[in-house]
Amino acid sequence: MFKVKVLNQEVIKKTLGMKQVIEGVEKVYTLKAEKRAHVWPMIFHEFEPGVADMDIKSGYLKDADIYGLKLVSWYGENPKKDLPPLIGTTLLFNMKTGAPMGLLSAEHITGMRTGAAGAIGAKYLANKDAENFLMVGTGHQAPFQIAAILMAMENIKTVRLYDPLNFEKAKELEGNIKGLLKEEFLQYYKEDEETYNALKKKFNVAFEAVEDLEDAVKKSEVITTATPSRKPMIMKEWVKPGTHISCVGADMSGKQEIDENIFGVAKVIVDDVNQATNVGETEMPIKKGIIDESHIIGEIGEVMLGNIKGRTSESDITVYDSTGIALQDLMISNLAIHIAKEKNIGEEILL
Amino acid sequence: MFKVKVLNQEVIKKTLGMKQVIEGVEKVYTLKAEKRAHVWPMIFHEFEPGVADMDIKSGYLKDADIYGLKLVSWYGENPKKDLPPLIGTTLLFNMKTGAPMGLLSAEHITGMRTGAAGAIGAKYLANKDAENFLMVGTGHQAPFQIAAILMAMENIKTVRLYDPLNFEKAKELEGNIKGLLKEEFLQYYKEDEETYNALKKKFNVAFEAVEDLEDAVKKSEVITTATPSRKPMIMKEWVKPGTHISCVGADMSGKQEIDENIFGVAKVIVDDVNQATNVGETEMPIKKGIIDESHIIGEIGEVMLGNIKGRTSESDITVYDSTGIALQDLMISNLAIHIAKEKNIGEEILL
Repeated sequence: MFKVKVLNQEVIKKTLGMKQVIEGVEKVYTLKAEKRAHVWPMIFHEFEPGVADMDIKSGYLKDADIYGLKLVSWYGENPKKDLPPLIGTTLLFNMKTGAPMGLLSAEHITGMRTGAAGAIGAKYLANKDAENFLMVGTGHQAPFQIAAILMAMENIKTVRLYDPLNFEKAKELEGNIKGLLKEEFLQYYKEDEETYNALKKKFNVAFEAVEDLEDAVKKSEVITTATPSRKPMIMKEWVKPGTHISCVGADMSGKQEIDENIFGVAKVIVDDVNQATNVGETEMPIKKGIIDESHIIGEIGEVMLGNIKGRTSESDITVYDSTGIALQDLMISNLAIHIAKEKNIGEEILL
Repeated sequence: MFKVKVLNQEVIKKTLGMKQVIEGVEKVYTLKAEKRAHVWPMIFHEFEPGVADMDIKSGYLKDADIYGLKLVSWYGENPKKDLPPLIGTTLLFNMKTGAPMGLLSAEHITGMRTGAAGAIGAKYLANKDAENFLMVGTGHQAPFQIAAILMAMENIKTVRLYDPLNFEKAKELEGNIKGLLKEEFLQYYKEDEETYNALKKKFNVAFEAVEDLEDAVKKSEVITTATPSRKPMIMKEWVKPGTHISCVGADMSGKQEIDENIFGVAKVIVDDVNQATNVGETEMPIKKGIIDESHIIGEIGEVMLGNIKGRTSESDITVYDSTGIALQDLMISNLAIHIAKEKNIGEEILL
């Protein structure tokens, strides 16, 4: 029998700090670029169109010696039964022996790794001296994105919050965000004084809910979009030279957050070319003929390794299309298991 | 959070009786024939050819309201590390909500459902008055096949045991099989006097290790092959009219247990046409041009539903090609979870 660590959401929150998650996702990007990590074909099934579906994403990470899968189901009617519509489960295996090693709830890890991914795009593509960050979308993902950006960037002074549907939601986040950052992201480091103080300082920026997206875009050097939008919100004319945009929301065909014409003038970097062109923000600019695939400079891991250049001038407009890859979930799940073992938290079962 | 039942091998042995497993596998066959159960594409990856691989088989069963997957890894060098070469893990979900409901060790369930599958082939295709059963292969699978056949058939009086590599192994099984049947299959029913006594009577047959396969085949009306063989062991000339053969061993391309010419004169029924023709015993007869796919009468579920006829005369030779389908694992895993809950055994975790 094998010892399998079981980590539910409550335990996972105690295991993961955003700093390590950013490092973990960076590692995934470079492993992928070095072809030491691979995804297997996705399985997708619609039980009832528009009502219930599920997908299984799987793959392996050679250096981390793990393989596994994340199964995510979406049941639109679940909230009526007091259940979450999205449910994710990750199963992890030891690649040296094939033994099962972990069963994890996937939601918090998805939130963390998605936040890290958007921030890594900014870290490697935005101008280092960027001071103004605009968060488009004030839902579940927003605090993850904001925390990660503030950690990954050095000079952010103002964070503007825009909600495409409801200004009140942006106002509400403006009121809550300092508390959320403290509770959900800073507290984790409370026993590591140096990191705690450094992050406390980084989190101490101005937050401002905004109603006028055009004005906010014009004032920002770094923008992240994390919405379920199906039509462009940010227009090309509003984007000033030097701006970086991390597009995080688009993860299935038909989703779009920014004007496809931005792609025509931007340096475009993606997490995975295949996913970006099929289900990411890059899908529409290609479908509408604004760019073809050759316009994509490459994958972020290649930029990190120095194999390709992302930004080459202060005035470049850069776009990072983050579609999210299963390998991120596997890497961060593995990290959570290691930390849970160290901290002696979470259940261990014999399977 | 969701309550997820965790069942390891020790617990699973306490939950499953072969009688219910046979009923469960029968249900899978008929659901499949009614197109109320589906398998999704298999994911297969060879980490190192001939050394380590893994596959993920998944699907759903509509009436049982479950979906899920079985991940099986094979690491040929594991025994050197005192680990099993084959490791299987099953993850089960509620199809009404998408919630995870069970994590199970897959080995014992695979053994049970494979035994049931071979026996169901005999039950629906062999002559009812068959008295002589020949078990070809005396490895891990043999006791499962023997127990299931003795339960599913009414008139077996003699069980002959043949091992293609080592007569001593057959002799050893001859010495152990009564004890194994009692411990592993009869004891489960110790609190159900009626079933216990009925099975005790059914298990009370003669067991005989044999060295001469030709002679044994000629004396048998029902034969099951469960070996990893890659060349035919049973020749067409030895098979008398009326014989039924359940071929259970072939589950990947290149495996073969019986003379391909038997297919030319037999009525051939399979569990899944696609798998049987690609990785089952039916692969070779087709590749060698003895039959084409149209020679396959159909799937066992269709026979059970009465949509097609398997055996139509006492003198027919029938072949059942059982390749094993993931839906069997899901159905029996679901059964194990239900029984474990009833018996209040096995762990329950919050995920």
